Amino acid sequence: MRAVTIVDKSLVVEADYPDPVPGFQQVLVRVKAAGLNGADLLQVRGAYPAPPGSPHDIPGLEFAGEVVGLGDGAARFEVGDRVMGIVGGGGQAELLTCNERQLMPVPPSLDIVEAGGFAEAFTTAHDALVTQAGLRPGERLLVHGAAGGVGTAAVQIGRALGASVVATSRHEQFDERLEHLGAEVVTRPGEHFGFGPFDVVLELIGGSNINEDVKALALNGRICVIGVGGGIKAELNLLALMAARGRVMASTLRSRPLEEKAATARAVERELFPFVDRGQMAVPIAESFPVEEVEQAYAHFKAGGKFGKVIITF
Amino acid sequence: MRAVTIVDKSLVVEADYPDPVPGFQQVLVRVKAAGLNGADLLQVRGAYPAPPGSPHDIPGLEFAGEVVGLGDGAARFEVGDRVMGIVGGGGQAELLTCNERQLMPVPPSLDIVEAGGFAEAFTTAHDALVTQAGLRPGERLLVHGAAGGVGTAAVQIGRALGASVVATSRHEQFDERLEHLGAEVVTRPGEHFGFGPFDVVLELIGGSNINEDVKALALNGRICVIGVGGGIKAELNLLALMAARGRVMASTLRSRPLEEKAATARAVERELFPFVDRGQMAVPIAESFPVEEVEQAYAHFKAGGKFGKVIITF
Repeated sequence: MRAVTIVDKSLVVEADYPDPVPGFQQVLVRVKAAGLNGADLLQVRGAYPAPPGSPHDIPGLEFAGEVVGLGDGAARFEVGDRVMGIVGGGGQAELLTCNERQLMPVPPSLDIVEAGGFAEAFTTAHDALVTQAGLRPGERLLVHGAAGGVGTAAVQIGRALGASVVATSRHEQFDERLEHLGAEVVTRPGEHFGFGPFDVVLELIGGSNINEDVKALALNGRICVIGVGGGIKAELNLLALMAARGRVMASTLRSRPLEEKAATARAVERELFPFVDRGQMAVPIAESFPVEEVEQAYAHFKAGGKFGKVIITF
Repeated sequence: MRAVTIVDKSLVVEADYPDPVPGFQQVLVRVKAAGLNGADLLQVRGAYPAPPGSPHDIPGLEFAGEVVGLGDGAARFEVGDRVMGIVGGGGQAELLTCNERQLMPVPPSLDIVEAGGFAEAFTTAHDALVTQAGLRPGERLLVHGAAGGVGTAAVQIGRALGASVVATSRHEQFDERLEHLGAEVVTRPGEHFGFGPFDVVLELIGGSNINEDVKALALNGRICVIGVGGGIKAELNLLALMAARGRVMASTLRSRPLEEKAATARAVERELFPFVDRGQMAVPIAESFPVEEVEQAYAHFKAGGKFGKVIITF
């Protein structure tokens, strides 16, 4: 099979990668589309090794495709079904195997390219907002870095669940699209204070924002950090956090074991698919690239200033 | 009545303070013993004004005494009952009124001086460990600053609830007493790494410790900050917190409204009184002072290096 492969910190398309064989309770998926994520960039640079059990040389955390084979004991899907999911690595390949419990069916309202950018973005955003931070209807949500894949998912999830959403993005040209996704207010980072205080802050930028996030926190507010492109070190004023009775929580999906990845997939099916089915959730695609143009795809992703997901297609 | 009163950032015993009158659903309590807390020191210095509805000039967050009057609608206690509780201020006075839902009965196993140091210490520790951090049996708990009132309560609560407890204190002379209260290991701050990783860290010191707390955190670990005597600013490594999928939570009791203070009192009655009744929880008293010696009491409290609570008696 063809697979995107990391060789000496750069990317090539290896044409003769051995085909994987589905094991017990595993599904063989022919990948049609695979979204790019920040973790892929770090992995290519050698700064973020794949978790145990995932291929060390093929990046890719999310994918959508078609079931083309079933291992012993695999019973959730049939050959031909459209599926999507999250893996610890290896998503950017023509074929992959994973446990059937990690997979979700692709809702009919999503085309396969959109589906390739759904799983990581929406699962990450749902896990952070709902499972970790416990977002409730009527709460006020701030999404920092709202124009990316996770950010656009978070704006839509917050809106669908009855929160009021303030979004920040450095790029004014995306304001209208973020409003269309459900943000009540779109503003620049640092200019959000007048619109708080916030019950939940989804922090996709990181270090430099935390001090101001705490100042903008409502009583019992939660800051959920799942992106640190803006710096990994934060200064934290503990007295201000105590006064807000606030929480700073941080999380990743990539390293979680099978049972936890499967649990996030069930939560997304249960709590987000109803909105997807009603057409209330979209996967904005910044651009998709055929796998032969993988280097251009990564360069485009890395450059920033895009709205939604960058997808590799097979 | 007599009351400890803040005048020009120092303390006097005012002999002719007006007696309070119990209002609807309030109880009049003749205070026998009142524990000192860090918030009292800050309030005397003018750095921590009393919350709305509490007397601004009488410190004191916890007390124990006897019911000597009932307002209309007060039905939980009878005149003569021994009670203890938490207030937003005004505890260090001969008489006080508070809503009956904020009060707890004094368990028979506690004498009234011990009871005067129970409410704030044990409610704070229980709220932080159980309600905030969700401590579970089998988890590993680190208590930083374990020799004080909240620390000695936390060691006992952790032990009683089935956690294994590592305690730190700067003072070696308290090691044996902390082990007697249930700590498996007692060590100096910074020397606890070999005994982790920790599921819950109770942080009673603050700023300077946070970075090392994160390094010592188990997967899904929680750091609960309720004391910042060691500094209010912390440096937080977000990537390390993400890798641990950790949380930093901070809280105070003093400013909470009636319904939340009442809820903490019910939780303590339900979850800690069984252990108190069995003699499995003690209130270590560092020293008690008659109210006439209030200045010595505060000086002793401020000096540190004591084991357990400092109490003012009436």
